[in-house]
Amino acid sequence: MNICKSFIGGEWVSVTATESAPVFNPALGEIIAEVPLADAALVDAAAQAAQAAFPGWRETPAVDRANILFRYKALLEAEFEAIALIISTEHGKTLGEARGDLRRGIQMVEYACGAPTLLMGESLENIARGIDCDVIRQPLGVCAGIVPFNFPAMVPLWMFPLALACGNTFILKPSEKVPLTATRLAELLDAAGLPKGVFNVVNGGRAVVDALLVHPLVRAISFVGSTPVARHIFDTGTRHGKRVQAAGGAKNFILVMPDATVTESVRGLVEAAFGCAGERCMAGSTAIAIGKAKDSVIPELVAAAKSIRVGAAFRDASAGMGPVITAQHRDRVETLIGVGEAEGARVAADGRSVRVADAPNGFYVGPTVLDGLAPDASLLREEIFGPVLGVVHMDDLDSAIEMANRSAYGNGAAIFTNSGRAAREFKHRINAGMVGINVAVPAPMAFFPFSGWNESFFGDLHLQGREGVAFYTQQKVTTSRWFAPGEGDVWAK
Amino acid sequence: MNICKSFIGGEWVSVTATESAPVFNPALGEIIAEVPLADAALVDAAAQAAQAAFPGWRETPAVDRANILFRYKALLEAEFEAIALIISTEHGKTLGEARGDLRRGIQMVEYACGAPTLLMGESLENIARGIDCDVIRQPLGVCAGIVPFNFPAMVPLWMFPLALACGNTFILKPSEKVPLTATRLAELLDAAGLPKGVFNVVNGGRAVVDALLVHPLVRAISFVGSTPVARHIFDTGTRHGKRVQAAGGAKNFILVMPDATVTESVRGLVEAAFGCAGERCMAGSTAIAIGKAKDSVIPELVAAAKSIRVGAAFRDASAGMGPVITAQHRDRVETLIGVGEAEGARVAADGRSVRVADAPNGFYVGPTVLDGLAPDASLLREEIFGPVLGVVHMDDLDSAIEMANRSAYGNGAAIFTNSGRAAREFKHRINAGMVGINVAVPAPMAFFPFSGWNESFFGDLHLQGREGVAFYTQQKVTTSRWFAPGEGDVWAK
Amino acid sequence: MNICKSFIGGEWVSVTATESAPVFNPALGEIIAEVPLADAALVDAAAQAAQAAFPGWRETPAVDRANILFRYKALLEAEFEAIALIISTEHGKTLGEARGDLRRGIQMVEYACGAPTLLMGESLENIARGIDCDVIRQPLGVCAGIVPFNFPAMVPLWMFPLALACGNTFILKPSEKVPLTATRLAELLDAAGLPKGVFNVVNGGRAVVDALLVHPLVRAISFVGSTPVARHIFDTGTRHGKRVQAAGGAKNFILVMPDATVTESVRGLVEAAFGCAGERCMAGSTAIAIGKAKDSVIPELVAAAKSIRVGAAFRDASAGMGPVITAQHRDRVETLIGVGEAEGARVAADGRSVRVADAPNGFYVGPTVLDGLAPDASLLREEIFGPVLGVVHMDDLDSAIEMANRSAYGNGAAIFTNSGRAAREFKHRINAGMVGINVAVPAPMAFFPFSGWNESFFGDLHLQGREGVAFYTQQKVTTSRWFAPGEGDVWAK
Amino acid sequence: MNICKSFIGGEWVSVTATESAPVFNPALGEIIAEVPLADAALVDAAAQAAQAAFPGWRETPAVDRANILFRYKALLEAEFEAIALIISTEHGKTLGEARGDLRRGIQMVEYACGAPTLLMGESLENIARGIDCDVIRQPLGVCAGIVPFNFPAMVPLWMFPLALACGNTFILKPSEKVPLTATRLAELLDAAGLPKGVFNVVNGGRAVVDALLVHPLVRAISFVGSTPVARHIFDTGTRHGKRVQAAGGAKNFILVMPDATVTESVRGLVEAAFGCAGERCMAGSTAIAIGKAKDSVIPELVAAAKSIRVGAAFRDASAGMGPVITAQHRDRVETLIGVGEAEGARVAADGRSVRVADAPNGFYVGPTVLDGLAPDASLLREEIFGPVLGVVHMDDLDSAIEMANRSAYGNGAAIFTNSGRAAREFKHRINAGMVGINVAVPAPMAFFPFSGWNESFFGDLHLQGREGVAFYTQQKVTTSRWFAPGEGDVWAK
Repeated sequence: MNICKSFIGGEWVSVTATESAPVFNPALGEIIAEVPLADAALVDAAAQAAQAAFPGWRETPAVDRANILFRYKALLEAEFEAIALIISTEHGKTLGEARGDLRRGIQMVEYACGAPTLLMGESLENIARGIDCDVIRQPLGVCAGIVPFNFPAMVPLWMFPLALACGNTFILKPSEKVPLTATRLAELLDAAGLPKGVFNVVNGGRAVVDALLVHPLVRAISFVGSTPVARHIFDTGTRHGKRVQAAGGAKNFILVMPDATVTESVRGLVEAAFGCAGERCMAGSTAIAIGKAKDSVIPELVAAAKSIRVGAAFRDASAGMGPVITAQHRDRVETLIGVGEAEGARVAADGRSVRVADAPNGFYVGPTVLDGLAPDASLLREEIFGPVLGVVHMDDLDSAIEMANRSAYGNGAAIFTNSGRAAREFKHRINAGMVGINVAVPAPMAFFPFSGWNESFFGDLHLQGREGVAFYTQQKVTTSRWFAPGEGDVWAK
Repeated sequence: MNICKSFIGGEWVSVTATESAPVFNPALGEIIAEVPLADAALVDAAAQAAQAAFPGWRETPAVDRANILFRYKALLEAEFEAIALIISTEHGKTLGEARGDLRRGIQMVEYACGAPTLLMGESLENIARGIDCDVIRQPLGVCAGIVPFNFPAMVPLWMFPLALACGNTFILKPSEKVPLTATRLAELLDAAGLPKGVFNVVNGGRAVVDALLVHPLVRAISFVGSTPVARHIFDTGTRHGKRVQAAGGAKNFILVMPDATVTESVRGLVEAAFGCAGERCMAGSTAIAIGKAKDSVIPELVAAAKSIRVGAAFRDASAGMGPVITAQHRDRVETLIGVGEAEGARVAADGRSVRVADAPNGFYVGPTVLDGLAPDASLLREEIFGPVLGVVHMDDLDSAIEMANRSAYGNGAAIFTNSGRAAREFKHRINAGMVGINVAVPAPMAFFPFSGWNESFFGDLHLQGREGVAFYTQQKVTTSRWFAPGEGDVWAK
Repeated sequence: MNICKSFIGGEWVSVTATESAPVFNPALGEIIAEVPLADAALVDAAAQAAQAAFPGWRETPAVDRANILFRYKALLEAEFEAIALIISTEHGKTLGEARGDLRRGIQMVEYACGAPTLLMGESLENIARGIDCDVIRQPLGVCAGIVPFNFPAMVPLWMFPLALACGNTFILKPSEKVPLTATRLAELLDAAGLPKGVFNVVNGGRAVVDALLVHPLVRAISFVGSTPVARHIFDTGTRHGKRVQAAGGAKNFILVMPDATVTESVRGLVEAAFGCAGERCMAGSTAIAIGKAKDSVIPELVAAAKSIRVGAAFRDASAGMGPVITAQHRDRVETLIGVGEAEGARVAADGRSVRVADAPNGFYVGPTVLDGLAPDASLLREEIFGPVLGVVHMDDLDSAIEMANRSAYGNGAAIFTNSGRAAREFKHRINAGMVGINVAVPAPMAFFPFSGWNESFFGDLHLQGREGVAFYTQQKVTTSRWFAPGEGDVWAK
Repeated sequence: MNICKSFIGGEWVSVTATESAPVFNPALGEIIAEVPLADAALVDAAAQAAQAAFPGWRETPAVDRANILFRYKALLEAEFEAIALIISTEHGKTLGEARGDLRRGIQMVEYACGAPTLLMGESLENIARGIDCDVIRQPLGVCAGIVPFNFPAMVPLWMFPLALACGNTFILKPSEKVPLTATRLAELLDAAGLPKGVFNVVNGGRAVVDALLVHPLVRAISFVGSTPVARHIFDTGTRHGKRVQAAGGAKNFILVMPDATVTESVRGLVEAAFGCAGERCMAGSTAIAIGKAKDSVIPELVAAAKSIRVGAAFRDASAGMGPVITAQHRDRVETLIGVGEAEGARVAADGRSVRVADAPNGFYVGPTVLDGLAPDASLLREEIFGPVLGVVHMDDLDSAIEMANRSAYGNGAAIFTNSGRAAREFKHRINAGMVGINVAVPAPMAFFPFSGWNESFFGDLHLQGREGVAFYTQQKVTTSRWFAPGEGDVWAK
């Protein structure tokens, strides 16, 4: 049995714990590894190691820090397919999706390689006569990242490459459901030549999270997960004097206008709703069909959903969708489909009955379409995090925007249309931080902020882009003036 | 008796309340006005008015919003001396200090006039083939500012001009100790042509603050005050889903190196310690004399402190320092001087005995120097907020930086030296966000962030500068793609 | 007779010259003032004055320089209508157009008020261990502006407010056809409190231009005019060691797609072609009607052109269009209309016959539409600078873009359409620096660059926006390191 | 004999020419390769290939373009030592200097890897009601680089990585004295996967340069060389409608204040004057010893100069300095030393007599110090480009700055001092674009502009940093508005 180690001060250490959590291959329903559930002592060891490494790393010039990331990028490319397979195996998503997961993550490494540019402060001479001012960005110290299961590579890579590039040291707490990818990411970072203690991995569960939230040496916490936990992380972390960015859940709407190109709209909806089995915070889980879009788009959409073959994607290249993460989660998704049905929606495609012949114990739910959700349906508020697409029918753009804007969340929103005006109105008025125009999953690339609004994000500074840099640094403003040293000095006038 | 009104939806309204707070002329110890202590209903009225005005103001182009601020700047200049007199009268600081207070505030109006430039987002075409991405900055909605007594003009002006320039509407909660300046600021803003409801003033005390912190329509809160209150504001505000920036207290150190120019160092220390009677978060309240600086600087410093004439500065141009804000505060300052004495410091200049002949009831404490504070003296941790300068003697720069870096605060820090190396080391290593090189009070100008660190600030985005803009806006990232509408379209290839 | 003076070193001076140029009221064909044609001596006096004022102005902090511009903005607003009338009187454009001319110019003053923000350089500590780097922007010295007749207020204001804000001193050479507006602009700048010599006006003709181009004290030249002259200015100025930005002529295309909203397209075309009597480098002088747009748009367009009443707009509020600048220019425009006709175009609206009853000697040409220009017509290459709209008919977007991209110019280009895809393709592919989507005259506002491409601009850094700031400053990069002074120093470790 | 090929459209082609230029190993005085002197036909072939490749490369997303540069960086690292040896062999500089040459160049590749960040434009919604504006940066087309012999790796790498990252295609014209490094750089770029035709190398001499300057397909030219040639390149290139950046020669001053740390000042002067045998535009060729610095610094400096062992550095690791580039150049340097002597300077160290035993035919000049140059010495104006340090003695900082500011050049300038005030004054007042504080060769790193002033640079936009990006792109400003399509549309209100 593969028992996950932690990485403390440059060494892989075995943790002895009274309890451990299983790591599944969800496509087969088999346990493939085990995570000992460490306690606060492990966190303390990591924090001490990270703190000890901080002064040296902070003094390492940004160019040199970036050079390690350049090597890291090269190693990640060299191991690209192998890592994708690890992702697919422990998470269940298809190899194509695993590649996308890793590719997005590598782009954050690429972005972080621009550290010298990103860390630039500002300067102005003569703010008053003979007085100059400048701003520099300095690192915070020990930062920590607490990550979810759904993007085993991308989400950790949203955090530590940039944190490190900015001169911080780091503690990663992987999801105990998908620790194997994180292990590989850490091994390669070590191989890239990072000094010992600059990066640490603590495997474990809730006790480890709790210890990170209160540890006095931890200066900042990055989190991605569900909204209730994000809120808890933010409140607890900030109360303990830490800077926190906590991305939470979502309920993202995709509007389809009557003038939208049908094929592309359907392709987008399918990708948004069923990609990664719907387990992503940018999933497009609710379609709003406007006017006659109902007639043109819905039938094709249902057909497309039904045509997706579910399977053990880590070994079956023909599978269009893999399992969800656990049996419990599968059950929860199926229950929520039932709720939709009970609330009056038509189950136009029903994933509850799906069976995979060569993987009978896998945690599968098939693509599901709940057509005709009522405007007050609970599923318009509840994040399902599974391959379930709700469809609402509305008469016009204004009412669709209004309904979407009533959501407590504000992550993504998309519209399909050929009209420049409809697109501009939607972009201007929608209450969501990431907007797609004919792009169903408008997750921004690494150099733009992953800017969730409302209850999709707690904090001021998002992951990715310049906000990410701002999160991992503090600005220092220096105002300076010099007096003539006095009489007789050779250079004085 | 002048009974302060509030400004709601473009109207000055009288508030009936069971209790009221007195506004003093602290130089005379006389009550000059009264603030009815309003309740949550007033806050709700303001919030409703601000919310109602938001859609129209948000849609007003940034250029047009800025034009109102251009007019506001002109009005503030025209009324400059009259406002300075109001400040001096209700706060006690000298007219020169009052002018500085207002000048700094006006510079924030000037900065906010650059709204079109400041609000620029970013754009990149072809992030993937045929896909473009841009970021825009949109306003939050209703923002609120809760301000202290010590800078009646500057601190409110740190907040609302920029918030308004960004497209938000605003509720100002002035200090109940100095509401008259805020009233005049509001009248002139109204005169500049701001639409009704865009800016509101709620006068009152703690009940009003509490109501702002939990009001569902308030999206963001800016606060300046003491550290315990700042922490409370931040925790409560964020728990209620608001963005919060809360600047707190400080204990700022000024190092004097043996090679420093004596005259200028003394001038700087006097200004930093006794300016505004020490009632400012950037006060330089602890001097660290390094090596022989003790011999060259301390005697002159004590002499300079003793030579400052305390008086009723609002009417007495020859007074070098005015009163503190209240009798209670005077008593607290005097008590803390006693604490220093009891802990072993020499009271080299003693302000406890000061009397002002023509203003016998004013709240005066004279310039005080506590020489030879021990490295563990409680006064190195406690913010006095009065005209008291503690002096510590140390042997070298390293130990001085080390001691300063042990502070829980991290607002300002300064060094006096002629050495480029000493200055660079200090700047690089000191744990404070605002650093002065031969500048005793390194409060940055409007276009740089007022970047307190540690317990001097709660939140991620500071007041002033680009961080101020980031605080008052949220970024929206749009990813767009367009499909060919289909066969037969005249422009398709 | 009003004989124009020049403004040298803070004094209005009369220039004696052997020749002078008349200033007309073109609506009446009457001479209203006279410009003595000064020689190089005047330029030298201005350059000496500007150079003498440079050290003091350069050392004036940006905040203080901006404060003069804040006062200037207030004065321009106070005199807004009076200046608009001067513009209309000496240029001929309608009062509405004159107001727009001035408004755009004032926006550059507003932009320049942001000098402290705009002048920020960059800074990075520890580019190598213990080595820091920063960039500051410093002014160039004496800058000069040479301006055309067509925007008597806007074009000068594109230049000197920003140049001055950046710390340069300035010499303005107004158009000898419209010197009265420039005179008023200078008087108000003087009234705003600018130190003597910082801003100077040299009135005259070609001799003055030639002297500016070679004067050794002039460090930079901004020019707006025709392409041949712009090219000459650029070549001559750069050969004499000056930084030059020279905006030239244009031939701007407006595409009308079959799906465009007809009313708005016609309104846009009329404004673009006949606004300011077509005398602007952003005039939309060629419409490309694509496919059936021909049938929907052209008839309405011709009717709209015919309905515009030409008149003495400076005194006649009902006039929709004023005269062109001179009798010679009127004759040239009429000749070019004849060329179009000779090349086979249909003169669908003919402005050659226009007569204004109450101003029979004015220099009038009426709105003219040349329908059906051949793709190789000389008028597709020749800038007419009069109220003449050529119309070309094409089959699809691709061929229209291709034709437009063959132009030697590259100033503006616009498309009218409701299709997001057509707009994106046009924006991406068109060879022009200023693009309008349903905006017929896409002249950017002050905070964006006026970014002509190809032969519409000579130089690297355009007027307006951050490029304007870059033009008027030079960057200085400082790399610094400090050594420990040696043994026994108290602060060394 | 190694006969250099050119790289056209992805193929290495042999060029037949009537004449060819020899490539020496200057340490041995032996010919190691030959460059056929191609004519305009080769340039045309390259330009056609580059133009053909442009549309595809331009449409390649910046992220994908950057990925090729990431691979290029990895290949350059892998071949680091081998390339350094090529540099040392054909140029003569020491292996350590060759490594620095290449390292600086690789840092430009690293910088260019940040293309997605660097290419960001700006965006602002609602510049007027319902009107949005954005700026994007688009590539120019075919760009060319013409490079000198002195940095065989760094200077080419200043140009093409950034040009390519911005979406341009490129033609490199290497120095015919050091073509072997360029060849290797090209081979590795090809190996990194760049599409054919995107990058081309044309080997040859003046005819090739002349052809590039006038070729209609070439849109921009980057040049580094001497001032007279830079001026010619700029004038000719701009007259032919090209954007040009042309870096020229220099005469850089290094001030040594009386308070400077002696050891470090001497180390800096030696590095600045004799590094790369003085063949660099940032060479510190004139020391100004201020006051008593004369006594403390000069004797040590002369001793240090004399202690440098000259040798065949490509194979002799103990050599501290290599040869100059050609026998002719050696003779010119020796002649100029004689000029200094004739003008009255003391030849305190004389490199004219140097002989290298194991390389008797190499082109050597030893480290030379000309002490006591008169303020009007011709060598204060003439760029020597050899290992010759002139020393001037002055009384104070003011007169030293004044003298330095009289130079026609304005590349670098440095000061050695421990005084913060002296450093600030120097930085503020010196007329040079690259300033060193205790840094003798203040050549900025890749992410800052290489900002020569005055006759050290022709053009507005320098190499390196954001100015480099601005040089290789043109901004396009789009203003957009959308109309409601009309009655009955489902989404209109």
